[in-house]
Amino acid sequence: MAEGHGTRRAIALDLGGTRYRVAVGTPDGEIEWRVSRATDADRGRDQVLKGMFAAVDEAVGRLGARSDLSGIGIGAPGPLDPWEGVLYNPPNLPGWDSLPLKKLFEDRYRVPTHVANDANLAAMGEHAFGAGRGFQHVVYVTVSTGIGAGIIIDDRLVLGARGYAGELGHMTIDMRGPLCRCGNTGCLEAIASGTAIATQARELVGKGARTSLSRIPPEQLTAKTVAEAAYEGDEVARELMRNAGQALGVGMVNVAHLFNPQRIILGGGVSMNGGPLLWDPMRETVRARAIATIQRDMEIVSAGLADDSGLLGAVAMVLSRDS
Amino acid sequence: MAEGHGTRRAIALDLGGTRYRVAVGTPDGEIEWRVSRATDADRGRDQVLKGMFAAVDEAVGRLGARSDLSGIGIGAPGPLDPWEGVLYNPPNLPGWDSLPLKKLFEDRYRVPTHVANDANLAAMGEHAFGAGRGFQHVVYVTVSTGIGAGIIIDDRLVLGARGYAGELGHMTIDMRGPLCRCGNTGCLEAIASGTAIATQARELVGKGARTSLSRIPPEQLTAKTVAEAAYEGDEVARELMRNAGQALGVGMVNVAHLFNPQRIILGGGVSMNGGPLLWDPMRETVRARAIATIQRDMEIVSAGLADDSGLLGAVAMVLSRDS
Repeated sequence: MAEGHGTRRAIALDLGGTRYRVAVGTPDGEIEWRVSRATDADRGRDQVLKGMFAAVDEAVGRLGARSDLSGIGIGAPGPLDPWEGVLYNPPNLPGWDSLPLKKLFEDRYRVPTHVANDANLAAMGEHAFGAGRGFQHVVYVTVSTGIGAGIIIDDRLVLGARGYAGELGHMTIDMRGPLCRCGNTGCLEAIASGTAIATQARELVGKGARTSLSRIPPEQLTAKTVAEAAYEGDEVARELMRNAGQALGVGMVNVAHLFNPQRIILGGGVSMNGGPLLWDPMRETVRARAIATIQRDMEIVSAGLADDSGLLGAVAMVLSRDS
Repeated sequence: MAEGHGTRRAIALDLGGTRYRVAVGTPDGEIEWRVSRATDADRGRDQVLKGMFAAVDEAVGRLGARSDLSGIGIGAPGPLDPWEGVLYNPPNLPGWDSLPLKKLFEDRYRVPTHVANDANLAAMGEHAFGAGRGFQHVVYVTVSTGIGAGIIIDDRLVLGARGYAGELGHMTIDMRGPLCRCGNTGCLEAIASGTAIATQARELVGKGARTSLSRIPPEQLTAKTVAEAAYEGDEVARELMRNAGQALGVGMVNVAHLFNPQRIILGGGVSMNGGPLLWDPMRETVRARAIATIQRDMEIVSAGLADDSGLLGAVAMVLSRDS
């Protein structure tokens, strides 16, 4: 770290459909202060913004007298314009269409503000401070209700022409496979996401499969309940996890062949809860299918920062542009 | 172009299994002089190298008195190390293992020499002088006996950790699909390459399909003969082209979702010979499957430099590092 830069700080805002978090972060990836509040989108956009401003005001107040605020980093659900910092139609935030987040925060706080989508921010966080630290070529994949990715090549985030690069969930791996909510068929997300695992479980229960999952009300069936049943030995649940793991493995083979990364980092609730019942078939699939010279120098690892990948990515995004 | 740079020249060497070509190129992408010779790999590596050196000597002799040689750019079949400029086991050049091409040429000619694989060079050529000129995010895809790609993001070629990025032919699009020569199943190359089209044609003929292709000796069945039969109205051949086009379309959807490019450029004999019978189903598939906001700003176009993409890519590779 350059001398005199020890006092630089970034404020991170992680805006989600159910809660938002605000934190103060350091160039070493430490979080010095944080707060988490309910988003409560029903109150309407202006009330939510008012609450977020109050939380950021608080963060500014917590900056030590010797600390300089380098800027604000905001993570939000896509789609968004990462250059202009404008949100478009976030599905969990109705009525937030075309919100110029970057401008609103720059006008109020007079510091550079950067906006990125959740998966890209998590990739930046893992690359700067987590499981991708020290690697130049890293692909971060989040497996949750959906599947997303952030791609870092030569230490730089890949955005593409309009900021939509890394839509890994909508990569076709089974062109005659199940319909995806995007309209395409056989997307990775339609086979291996938490939503897909729950849907497959409901279908099997509906068909009368002999499984402990049939005792759970269908609307409460989630990837997590499937993972739990699998760990208790339920064969149907185990098969569901195995299938999802194999599909994820095919996805990782494609990532390996297209990007030749040093590390693929898996985050998100499904990959965390899935454990070996998901990871083992995933790794076996990569071993069996990926080109030997490419997989030899590549590791697939868990995210190192858990829930803070995104917050710390926002910190990294601000401080990397101010050094 | 900066003043005084008008006299810079690059020598390009395109090394193939059947022939090699040497050319002198300008910063404007003009080829001032060229020669093409049979590789004749049976003569052994040292004889081939001797012939290539003689051709490059000739190129040096053709440089005008006011021209400066900026360097030499070499395109070769992969796998290779693009930083060290070493060839590994090129399948069409037996006995060329671990050949330090960069060093051999730098020792002899005392100018910077750069080595890249064919698909990456063609991408650089199209980006600098062809259908990708003026775009920052371009994916070049060659559909020939195999399928390869060169990926350019923010005007820079994506190499990945070891130079293997862009192995698009070995992206799985049908995880339960046909076996690929790489050992994986359902690779794009196993479904839509020239080799795959010819294999599928042979299988259908073998099964007694009613097609004009059955009059062609099986060993002479190629993607080109299938395309010709399709244009003469043969329904079986048309179906083969349609299936390959749809699979290519799925591949392009994945390229669009992962890289969000402005242009996808298709080159290679199969895409050139395939015409609308291949391109129409490919485009329909992209229209039906790709995320609307991503395909809206993206075009899929033919390569603009035909056979010279690679040679001009070698010119661009040299001159872009010397400006």
